Amino acid sequence: MSGNKKNILVIGGGSWGSCLSKLLVENGHNVYLWEYNEEVRDVMKTTKTNPNFLKGIKLPDELNIIDDYGKVLTDEKKYGKIDIVLLATPTQFLRGVLKRLKNFLNYNIILVNVAKGLEISTKKRISEIVDEELENKNYNYVLLAGPTHAEEVAQRLPSAILSVSKDENSAKIVQKTFSNSYFRVYTGTDLMGAELAGALKNCLAIAAGIADGLGYGDNTKAALITRGINEMFEIAKYYNANQKTFMGLSGLGDIIVTCTSRHSRNRYVGEKLGKGEKIEDIIKNMQMVSEGAETIKALYKIIKENNLNAPIFTALYEVIYKGKPVTDLEKTFMSRDLKSEFSN
Amino acid sequence: MSGNKKNILVIGGGSWGSCLSKLLVENGHNVYLWEYNEEVRDVMKTTKTNPNFLKGIKLPDELNIIDDYGKVLTDEKKYGKIDIVLLATPTQFLRGVLKRLKNFLNYNIILVNVAKGLEISTKKRISEIVDEELENKNYNYVLLAGPTHAEEVAQRLPSAILSVSKDENSAKIVQKTFSNSYFRVYTGTDLMGAELAGALKNCLAIAAGIADGLGYGDNTKAALITRGINEMFEIAKYYNANQKTFMGLSGLGDIIVTCTSRHSRNRYVGEKLGKGEKIEDIIKNMQMVSEGAETIKALYKIIKENNLNAPIFTALYEVIYKGKPVTDLEKTFMSRDLKSEFSN
Repeated sequence: MSGNKKNILVIGGGSWGSCLSKLLVENGHNVYLWEYNEEVRDVMKTTKTNPNFLKGIKLPDELNIIDDYGKVLTDEKKYGKIDIVLLATPTQFLRGVLKRLKNFLNYNIILVNVAKGLEISTKKRISEIVDEELENKNYNYVLLAGPTHAEEVAQRLPSAILSVSKDENSAKIVQKTFSNSYFRVYTGTDLMGAELAGALKNCLAIAAGIADGLGYGDNTKAALITRGINEMFEIAKYYNANQKTFMGLSGLGDIIVTCTSRHSRNRYVGEKLGKGEKIEDIIKNMQMVSEGAETIKALYKIIKENNLNAPIFTALYEVIYKGKPVTDLEKTFMSRDLKSEFSN
Repeated sequence: MSGNKKNILVIGGGSWGSCLSKLLVENGHNVYLWEYNEEVRDVMKTTKTNPNFLKGIKLPDELNIIDDYGKVLTDEKKYGKIDIVLLATPTQFLRGVLKRLKNFLNYNIILVNVAKGLEISTKKRISEIVDEELENKNYNYVLLAGPTHAEEVAQRLPSAILSVSKDENSAKIVQKTFSNSYFRVYTGTDLMGAELAGALKNCLAIAAGIADGLGYGDNTKAALITRGINEMFEIAKYYNANQKTFMGLSGLGDIIVTCTSRHSRNRYVGEKLGKGEKIEDIIKNMQMVSEGAETIKALYKIIKENNLNAPIFTALYEVIYKGKPVTDLEKTFMSRDLKSEFSN
């Protein structure tokens, strides 16, 4: 493929993977979509819809649903040379995908990731996992992150997102490839900040959902989000990330949408917790993954090991996994000792 | 009055004035409430409710609804010495109130203001207006600001707010006076930052409402708010205000609640604009004042005169008052030229 038209492999046919595949086809690119669940894959093949993850949306006829991405990456004659691989799988499954993908990466490629989270066992960010698994391979890593619920992008509602990479040129290629009249892509280079913001906001969304589940109002939730963002700054400081990134689309923008939107599954998990359900039961009954419920496990370790000042995130973990009452969350910013706003 | 029990005069019986009067009585203080509209005042006197501005809420029997605040401030024998005057009137009526109030201020007092805005004709912040009008008078000025819709505080839903003053001691007295189990007051000293954040967020709420009125989703609104907050940082820089304040309760917290809440009247004005109504008709049909629709007039002057980079606020003014199409607002962050997030 030459010029602006790209040859793209999408790994993961969940809501975001399917939605972006649709968008990329609409932008004139050639797209191969692979989904690990054979049943879902077959439905997509035959109906060009994804009723489980992107209800009511027609996928383009030109979208190629494939059974083996290894072939797509190696049979250049048949599939063309792949320019971009879009990773749209949950964080906790990523290592498995990368271990297989590694076998087929034989030239320089752009890897775009859209998942957000921290790996529980290693506490690692996604770019670190990728670097580890794809050692000695030639690729440029780009993260796409921002306030973009798949359900709305699929309906072509105006959305803005950040294409962030240590390699500015790759960020710009991704920007150009994904941009259109309803999807505006900005570029950035603070990968660490964007990764952290993305991982942490999923945890904060659960906290916001708990406030909803307890029947609190907009005031409580806004206070919780504000105090939570300030804890995120504390954590950013520990990582030496750029605080400005946290004020951008991948930080604040995504936090607002995730904490207030009816579409957010992390917020939904919180709402159920607030209503008294147990995390095991909530997760069992959900079709989708709650990245926040996983990430908080790694985050809690990081907070404890480094003695970071993050009472909301600490309480959140203890509420979910240590059986503390959900109202403990509120106490972190409603306690009776009177103090100044940024005293901590 | 001595000790923790305060003698408090509240000027303005709108939703917030009424709600805080109720809260202060519940906290054990002695409260006199004055409202300029005689009809509203009489209803409050006889029914101890305020159906126009705080529907469904019972005001405490101990709340004193008064006809003449001059007398309350001067007849110490009858009313006791007033410790705190709470100003709860819209910005544009404030000078009138202050001109009268000045006649009765004969000793050092704490003035608490809860209105947010900029005066259109002078482009001044409220503390500047107060300083001008109360020249030579002895008072300490405190602003109470944060994500606190009256309707929710009146229902005792957990809320947090900032008590901010150049005089830290006064901020602490106000903190102690207003705090209770459902109302958590933090203190701060960056008065300028809190005033600016409060004024600007009302404008941004109108923009967010326009996105709602146009039928856009959560993605669009989150992008608009995020880009809008970054414009607020630009304006803060011009004023030499502390950016940290914009990340706190009086900034971010209030922005989130005002831009997303169903209770916000500024957001509501935007929603009507987004649906194609004219500002004159919207304002005419509203019982309450939209501070944002006034403040944007002063803000527009400030942006133009100082050549500040604030495309969303600029477009907002031109949409409301210069007949530009409402979709122009979206163009400010969805335009086709591709750029980096913080390049401007």
